[in-house]
Amino acid sequence: MMNQRPDRPVLTVDIGGTKIAAAVVAPSGEVVSRARGASPDSDDDQELVDAVARVAGEALSSIDARTTDMAALGVSCAGIVNVHDGVVVYSPNVTALRRTPLKMMLGDRLGIPVRLGNDATLAALGEWQFGVGAAVQDLVYVTVSTGIGGGIICGGRLLEGSCGAGGEVGHMTIEVNGPRCACGRTGCWEALGSGTALAARTVHRLDQGEPSIIGELVGGDMAKVDAQVVSIAAQQGDALAQEMIGVTAFYVGVGLGNLINIFNPSVVVVGGGLTKIGDALLGPAFATARERAYVTSACDVDIIMARLGDDSPLLGAAALVWDEGT
Amino acid sequence: MMNQRPDRPVLTVDIGGTKIAAAVVAPSGEVVSRARGASPDSDDDQELVDAVARVAGEALSSIDARTTDMAALGVSCAGIVNVHDGVVVYSPNVTALRRTPLKMMLGDRLGIPVRLGNDATLAALGEWQFGVGAAVQDLVYVTVSTGIGGGIICGGRLLEGSCGAGGEVGHMTIEVNGPRCACGRTGCWEALGSGTALAARTVHRLDQGEPSIIGELVGGDMAKVDAQVVSIAAQQGDALAQEMIGVTAFYVGVGLGNLINIFNPSVVVVGGGLTKIGDALLGPAFATARERAYVTSACDVDIIMARLGDDSPLLGAAALVWDEGT
Repeated sequence: MMNQRPDRPVLTVDIGGTKIAAAVVAPSGEVVSRARGASPDSDDDQELVDAVARVAGEALSSIDARTTDMAALGVSCAGIVNVHDGVVVYSPNVTALRRTPLKMMLGDRLGIPVRLGNDATLAALGEWQFGVGAAVQDLVYVTVSTGIGGGIICGGRLLEGSCGAGGEVGHMTIEVNGPRCACGRTGCWEALGSGTALAARTVHRLDQGEPSIIGELVGGDMAKVDAQVVSIAAQQGDALAQEMIGVTAFYVGVGLGNLINIFNPSVVVVGGGLTKIGDALLGPAFATARERAYVTSACDVDIIMARLGDDSPLLGAAALVWDEGT
Repeated sequence: MMNQRPDRPVLTVDIGGTKIAAAVVAPSGEVVSRARGASPDSDDDQELVDAVARVAGEALSSIDARTTDMAALGVSCAGIVNVHDGVVVYSPNVTALRRTPLKMMLGDRLGIPVRLGNDATLAALGEWQFGVGAAVQDLVYVTVSTGIGGGIICGGRLLEGSCGAGGEVGHMTIEVNGPRCACGRTGCWEALGSGTALAARTVHRLDQGEPSIIGELVGGDMAKVDAQVVSIAAQQGDALAQEMIGVTAFYVGVGLGNLINIFNPSVVVVGGGLTKIGDALLGPAFATARERAYVTSACDVDIIMARLGDDSPLLGAAALVWDEGT
């Protein structure tokens, strides 16, 4: 991969539930321009296309570039994306995207080739090519945030699956009789190891009257309990917060162990908002992952933090364009 | 793959805990000769190599072939196999194999190139190339027997992992607080969905005094309760046996659903001894797999029975030799 990277930059956008980020990425991997705008609060996919074109246009105009100077547009978006036909089947936070032929719509609007991918899959591609390095052939990337997503590199290639929906690791069942997931099933990894799960189990214990400083930190408003608040409480020595982070870390580790068994990667990269908690979460999570990994009797695995932060899907979208030779 | 298949046949062996099977496989995929012998009851790896050479020699002599007529020897064996250095790290039922450099030992003995792989991984390769057909690019193969194993084809290539130990799907955690697995961890798929798990949960209920004809079928000897006995009882209308098969089918389905989410395959192939139970197991298992698969909102998946039976690892070992151009 990346043997024939063209010398033209790539225009990239990352479509989220609340914001649209755009960047122009040079072939070196350097982000040479950025722009950002709000996602339209609308179910109209045409309004979303308008907003994407506007934010992308800002990223171009700030460096006096034209759309046609770009090799292509690389688009990252959460949810189930059929990469082969360029359709966003479903995106959890972007209600305008329901079986939307986004590749065609954006191509018609901008007049350049468009490549489309799931945000976590593209983040994996970005972390691989611009973080860990493409010499690694087998890599598992996991992002632990409000949900859990992932992307996989197998034998030096991105795992796409039969319609580009591969790598849906967040909905792997790890405790079949566990709590209900947003997807409607029970015991998904995301329902046990995400930031949302951490907040939910903390609120549940607070509701039972467990002593904690968390109630004070949120001024009694349980709706404000999130991973960040729990992390702050834990740092201040709150026993409940520390316990809840430990439980969540265990579940993060169980899922990582599964992926190590299934893929036998040489590197596991963990990113996403929940990793901001730091060692209190990652230490026990990584230890559990190693304990539950069976294949490590054959060979070791490095488990490391992601390096590119929020840029990983944008850089991955650029890598996708270059890799496909679009 | 398989573009440059040589015109010479491949000698193959499948090393199990109780028997060694050998076959000569023609480039067409036809098994032109077979032999079979007992595995030595010994921890001495040299005795095992002797036995493999003897059984392989019988397969050759019955068609008047010499070792040097063969393109190579393809070896299938249960357990964790480092395909890159040709070492069997651990094999659950073959105590002679513990960090054994089997590729080197058999190469020295037979004087032809040797290729080595995990039995379930090779079965996947065999089912893919000689059963489903190599036009399929994304395939998950699972064998449900006393344990659960698997092998994966991603983007038209065998998933090997960083040291060839990929595809260890049986030790994927699906119910973290579930029963203890033979590997020492809790809630592995194998501990919940295998034939061993079916027998264990049936005996547990019988021990609690549950009415059933199973006790009669085994003459009161609970050690004789296995998947086959439970299946016979279920066919005779035994309610406990039917319930136990249903519970086991559910767990089989949960694991299959996980693999569909992770790999987004177009075909899932299910083989192994437990599939002999038939529709009573496979019907609910396949239904659960579809219910728990998240990515099928993007595209459908065929879930089918394996076609090659016990020959799949032998045919896969031959395909491994041809694919590597050895």
